[in-house]
Amino acid sequence: MSRPDRTTSTISGRPLGKTELRRIDAWWRAANYLSVGQIYLMGNPLLREPLAPEHVKPRLLGHWGTTPGLNFLYAHLNRAIMARDLDTIYVIGPGHGGPGLVASAWLEGTYSEVYPDITRDADGMRKLFHQFSFPGGIPSHVAPETPGSIHEGGELGYALSHAYGAAFDNPDLVVAAVVGDGEAETGPLATSWHSNKFLDPRRDGAVLPILHLNGYKIANPTVLARIPESELLSLLRGYGHTPYVVSGSDPAEMHQAFAATLDHCLDEIRDIQQEARGSRRKTAARPPWPMIVLRSPKGWTGPKEVDGKRMEGSWRSHQVPFADARGNDAHRAVLDGWLRSYKPEELFGADGAPVPDVAELHPAGDRRMSANPHANGGLLLRDLRMPDFRDYAVEVAVPGTGAVESTRVLGTFLRDVMAANMTSFRLFSPDENSSNRLQDVLEVTDRTWNAETLPDDDHLGVDGRIMEILSEHTVEGWLEGYLLTGRHGLFSCYEAFIHVVDSMFNQHAKWLKVTNGIPWRRPVASLNYLLTSHVWRQDHNGFSHQDPGFIDHVVNKKAGVIRVYLPADANTLLSVADHCLRSRQYVNVIVAGKQPALQYLTMDQAVVHATKGIGIWDWAGTDHGQEPDVVVGCAGDVPTMEALAAVALLRDFFPDLRIRFVNVVDLMRLQSEREHPHGLSDADFDSLFTKDKPVIFAYHGYPWLIHRLTYKRTNHRNLHVRGYKEEGTTTTPFDMAVMNQIDRFNLAMDVIDRVDRLQATSGSAREALKNKLIEHRIHVRAHGEDLPEIREWQWQPADPADPADPAE
Amino acid sequence: MSRPDRTTSTISGRPLGKTELRRIDAWWRAANYLSVGQIYLMGNPLLREPLAPEHVKPRLLGHWGTTPGLNFLYAHLNRAIMARDLDTIYVIGPGHGGPGLVASAWLEGTYSEVYPDITRDADGMRKLFHQFSFPGGIPSHVAPETPGSIHEGGELGYALSHAYGAAFDNPDLVVAAVVGDGEAETGPLATSWHSNKFLDPRRDGAVLPILHLNGYKIANPTVLARIPESELLSLLRGYGHTPYVVSGSDPAEMHQAFAATLDHCLDEIRDIQQEARGSRRKTAARPPWPMIVLRSPKGWTGPKEVDGKRMEGSWRSHQVPFADARGNDAHRAVLDGWLRSYKPEELFGADGAPVPDVAELHPAGDRRMSANPHANGGLLLRDLRMPDFRDYAVEVAVPGTGAVESTRVLGTFLRDVMAANMTSFRLFSPDENSSNRLQDVLEVTDRTWNAETLPDDDHLGVDGRIMEILSEHTVEGWLEGYLLTGRHGLFSCYEAFIHVVDSMFNQHAKWLKVTNGIPWRRPVASLNYLLTSHVWRQDHNGFSHQDPGFIDHVVNKKAGVIRVYLPADANTLLSVADHCLRSRQYVNVIVAGKQPALQYLTMDQAVVHATKGIGIWDWAGTDHGQEPDVVVGCAGDVPTMEALAAVALLRDFFPDLRIRFVNVVDLMRLQSEREHPHGLSDADFDSLFTKDKPVIFAYHGYPWLIHRLTYKRTNHRNLHVRGYKEEGTTTTPFDMAVMNQIDRFNLAMDVIDRVDRLQATSGSAREALKNKLIEHRIHVRAHGEDLPEIREWQWQPADPADPADPAE
Repeated sequence: MSRPDRTTSTISGRPLGKTELRRIDAWWRAANYLSVGQIYLMGNPLLREPLAPEHVKPRLLGHWGTTPGLNFLYAHLNRAIMARDLDTIYVIGPGHGGPGLVASAWLEGTYSEVYPDITRDADGMRKLFHQFSFPGGIPSHVAPETPGSIHEGGELGYALSHAYGAAFDNPDLVVAAVVGDGEAETGPLATSWHSNKFLDPRRDGAVLPILHLNGYKIANPTVLARIPESELLSLLRGYGHTPYVVSGSDPAEMHQAFAATLDHCLDEIRDIQQEARGSRRKTAARPPWPMIVLRSPKGWTGPKEVDGKRMEGSWRSHQVPFADARGNDAHRAVLDGWLRSYKPEELFGADGAPVPDVAELHPAGDRRMSANPHANGGLLLRDLRMPDFRDYAVEVAVPGTGAVESTRVLGTFLRDVMAANMTSFRLFSPDENSSNRLQDVLEVTDRTWNAETLPDDDHLGVDGRIMEILSEHTVEGWLEGYLLTGRHGLFSCYEAFIHVVDSMFNQHAKWLKVTNGIPWRRPVASLNYLLTSHVWRQDHNGFSHQDPGFIDHVVNKKAGVIRVYLPADANTLLSVADHCLRSRQYVNVIVAGKQPALQYLTMDQAVVHATKGIGIWDWAGTDHGQEPDVVVGCAGDVPTMEALAAVALLRDFFPDLRIRFVNVVDLMRLQSEREHPHGLSDADFDSLFTKDKPVIFAYHGYPWLIHRLTYKRTNHRNLHVRGYKEEGTTTTPFDMAVMNQIDRFNLAMDVIDRVDRLQATSGSAREALKNKLIEHRIHVRAHGEDLPEIREWQWQPADPADPADPAE
Repeated sequence: MSRPDRTTSTISGRPLGKTELRRIDAWWRAANYLSVGQIYLMGNPLLREPLAPEHVKPRLLGHWGTTPGLNFLYAHLNRAIMARDLDTIYVIGPGHGGPGLVASAWLEGTYSEVYPDITRDADGMRKLFHQFSFPGGIPSHVAPETPGSIHEGGELGYALSHAYGAAFDNPDLVVAAVVGDGEAETGPLATSWHSNKFLDPRRDGAVLPILHLNGYKIANPTVLARIPESELLSLLRGYGHTPYVVSGSDPAEMHQAFAATLDHCLDEIRDIQQEARGSRRKTAARPPWPMIVLRSPKGWTGPKEVDGKRMEGSWRSHQVPFADARGNDAHRAVLDGWLRSYKPEELFGADGAPVPDVAELHPAGDRRMSANPHANGGLLLRDLRMPDFRDYAVEVAVPGTGAVESTRVLGTFLRDVMAANMTSFRLFSPDENSSNRLQDVLEVTDRTWNAETLPDDDHLGVDGRIMEILSEHTVEGWLEGYLLTGRHGLFSCYEAFIHVVDSMFNQHAKWLKVTNGIPWRRPVASLNYLLTSHVWRQDHNGFSHQDPGFIDHVVNKKAGVIRVYLPADANTLLSVADHCLRSRQYVNVIVAGKQPALQYLTMDQAVVHATKGIGIWDWAGTDHGQEPDVVVGCAGDVPTMEALAAVALLRDFFPDLRIRFVNVVDLMRLQSEREHPHGLSDADFDSLFTKDKPVIFAYHGYPWLIHRLTYKRTNHRNLHVRGYKEEGTTTTPFDMAVMNQIDRFNLAMDVIDRVDRLQATSGSAREALKNKLIEHRIHVRAHGEDLPEIREWQWQPADPADPADPAE
């Protein structure tokens, strides 16, 4: 079954007339020719002179194996688009097939439109070939540089989730999504088939998955190509699809079989949508969406054999099928024969442009898959309609008091953002939206759900806009697809488990970085992460749930595309969130707690503070504008509370100690302005942290990140950072801080240990702090909860006569 | 269907006699009682006095929802183990069910054996309850502290891959693996069902997956519980299983139905194994392994309703079903009734120990799932039989010459390690084993494959020991399961895509850290990563494949369990690999190239160098033992080559410049001995890097990691690091270095810019270097390959008369 010699198809029929068949085959041959040319040639593009060594690239890079299948699909999709005036984009799971997509974009004229130097003629073809996988040219994979793509495909696993993300809220869009059989083995892809339970056939567009079985990965066969077909079909039906199989290798037969199958599937999609959209029922039942299994040889139409070894239909076709076509005459002859087998003389005119038979197979303008604006989402992007975030402010009469769930407050704002943008904004979460306290959004929309419902279910709806599946990969993929096609969203996640998508974040950040250098790519909305249920409040779930390292991972990526915010209270969070939702081309990471917590800033103060990103909290310090003895810095809600409590302790022990209190919201402010666009100048940094005073810094995450960001600063040698040092278990919130020595007592002792003039007089204070720590540990082990004075601690302004002056 | 009121079962039969039924139910009730007690109580464990507020924990933490189902399965597995003398471990996907596993371990006596303070009597029960989710006690989840577990379950997704890892090479083991329906939505789990294509029924044990549908996650229903049963069964058959469904809620009926089903499945497993093992065929066909779908209510046997809201069978049972049972009398009455519904007076004797009816349901000694040595793999671990790695040495006549694929050399060593350990060592890779140049291992074993094969397939075999599926998650999970049950292995991966398992690494590192503090947990073999196809040699695949950040991710974890090695050549790699394969309880990350590369050290030198982890290469320096003008440091193969080439350039320009050349193999040597067990003392660090001379450091990864590791060192202010700064595309290898300014010309210019005494005289040298860079860029864009003098560059000893003295 894995060597599809005879053409077989679930759907019979030969819909293609002679002309159509000829055109489709011509397109396919042209695209294959251009693909091989890109991989091998740097001159003589039309083979109008004998193929000489100097026409062949000295270093051959690229992947042939998957490419002819992708080209085959492109040709057939073009026919369907033209016949039905479809609005279609093409998501290419097998990203190795870069040359194929470039070839089609060139045949459609799009390539020359966005890269005017690569004209649609012989000279352009030569440049097209030369640049591929060539220094200063274009990457070997489908990439941001490739017109018509929203999907790199380098890492594999996200084709379907990206495709669904594109389809949401785009009722007229049909997303053709090719899944390679290698990719199909990845976990993210394996679960993303279930995305069909989250699609509303009335409101959303359609995804047509095409599982392309060419049988091999790099060196191994693929699982799905080598299980019995009955098992494969059972699997796909189990995923909720109606699969149609097209299998074979003879081009003419395959064209007929595939055209019949594609027509059938598009008819089914149309019928499903018409039925759902015509119905007056509140909910549309989940239909058995069609999908296609295409079984074709790896390296289809390539050389059958090279050096006595099978090539077409073998894993040996995966990359460049044979090397050294420059120096090895026999190899060059194989290449020559291979290229000529596509009959370029029939495909390209005297000037090198595609002949009408080829050119006429593609649709016009925006209907070209390579030019479809959905694949350059910034073209379609509209600003969100935003309520004024100030209207959701928490009242803060005295700073450092209260008990507010910051993300709950954010939820009220997001509810109204949602209500104002019911076709262009969604929330995404791995079953944690309410756990993360964003449940107020449920007042205006449901959780998306197109499967069985029961009476006790809570806010499920086919037309819901809160996307929840217990797969961080799938929600990330949906959101990326949604953003890249010009919409907005926010991903809320437990902080520890956002690492599940580390590698997906990498790819998206790389995509953004590259697109920043491509003029025709228009800016898209930022990818916003809200990380809550964070390390300090996973005291209940324990050690496995404690990891603040995503920030470290993020800051490795290019400074121009990443932003990290640690708002310490609800008003600051609102201001930060408003900023992030309006921004473009970033990955914004917001870390904020969901547990009842102290509030610090009035809304006016919060706006100023969030805008500056870092600042002195005068009300919290004891320096009264004078040169301080010590700087206490903090970033993150729990560290801010502990730092503030440490100041309160110190204030009692050492009334004349001058402490400056600095809070950081925008982590990148710590870095130099030379390293990050948000970085502070050295002068500004010095003015905050002094040039020579001890700095005790309580940080939300792994402490060394603060050193990494600040190692070039004047006063770095006096910087002492506390943070999470990988200690934890199921315990109390304050005990988590104690285990990592970021609690108020340890911070106060840190100050004592580092301020010279306290050394002599501090003995009793230090002992009192230490005793308090011991008292805590005894209490917590006896009673299972923190000391009441710690649980209920609130800030008391130094001068009781002047409590309401929390000026920043 | 999601509310299983009526009991239904694929397999009919009522195999349980009256006594058996009574015992199973008694065990189940006892385990449920103990589970609820752990979540709620801190006193009055046997309810022998009225339940008072002070008996209830003030802070309720834990998860009830999944627990009764896990207890139900435990009881039934115990019956089967006793009836069939099975060797069985229990992998618990739903890690939230911690109290259930603790309860069973206590009932079996294991808990008191490993924690003698927690006796199997009333006093022990009180302590058992008190300690759960209590500060100073045990975590709320299945955790390393839980006897019988190899699987935390905190993150979700890895139950099946861990189970298969445990089953490999354990022919007599039956791994019962519970998959929660929440977990089933994750990508890693969704693809891990295909593990059955990699199991040899003759050589390996069996995995019995039990998909536990209780219908809800935190707040949402689960996908697999809400698709039609026909679709679910189709999906599971598509995964290659024969599914048997047991559905219902009535205990007595469910006991009969489940017992019949479990018997049937275990019979099938036995028949499959007998047939495969009796056959003389070289390969065993892949059988349709049985599996069970258990549909039972979430929070089964818990309160039906609390405060007028449905509880049993609802998502509200997920965590602690109702709060404040201390202060709220009505809630406490519900708790009292709930606990008494299990009839503790029938289950526990006067002393609080389980009555014989309960105690007799568990097997003895090592057959207890909580005491099975496979779940404490260090007990079974044997050293690998190791060939002498020195026998695989590459000859190095002149350092800095040659063209050797380092990982290919490693492959010859691994081949013989494999051959000597054909039941306890495996290689794991996402379809990259040969791409990573470990193909010589194929001389002694195949790639594991139990699906269709075709004539052109390369070294596939049911009994292969190279485990390849295109899922980093699955191979990581297999390897973890294999290691945790007392065996050895190595995971080779493209460097960029190891980020796919960032979060799995986190969990494994946390597991190791915690087990280091548990005396009864015996050390297991280290998890060894070989990262190749690394960032500097992804010039062909492009930007998406370029990411050296896994090291950064790893070093966030506890210093005691992580090690990072960057051997610059084959002999050093051999020495490092030998060390790693012999080690215990670490995660070892080895980064090494697969492309032909220069070799530096003879085997004797390599052994010394790898053992020290860092050292001066005298032959490469120009300081001749004197105080240097500058230190050139390097870590990683490409950076080492570029640093060496920079020295050669500088030597020509400035014959009297004294350069010290320091190479780092063991990255953790850079850190302080106070931070990491491998850390250098400050004195040793200073003696290598000087206290005040400029240090130019060429590092494999993101440059700031070196700053992070060294910011406390005396000479840190003079340290200048080059590394990958997130620039790249499809280009040439040397151009990759240039794009990130880690190339020889930039490094040499860095030296010039930082050595004061060169400033005056260096103008022409700097210009020459800059011109050379420009020449390179012109050449590479014209010819698509690096300048021949760069491609073919080799080290020339300074004194041609003395070429063969590469003394370290």
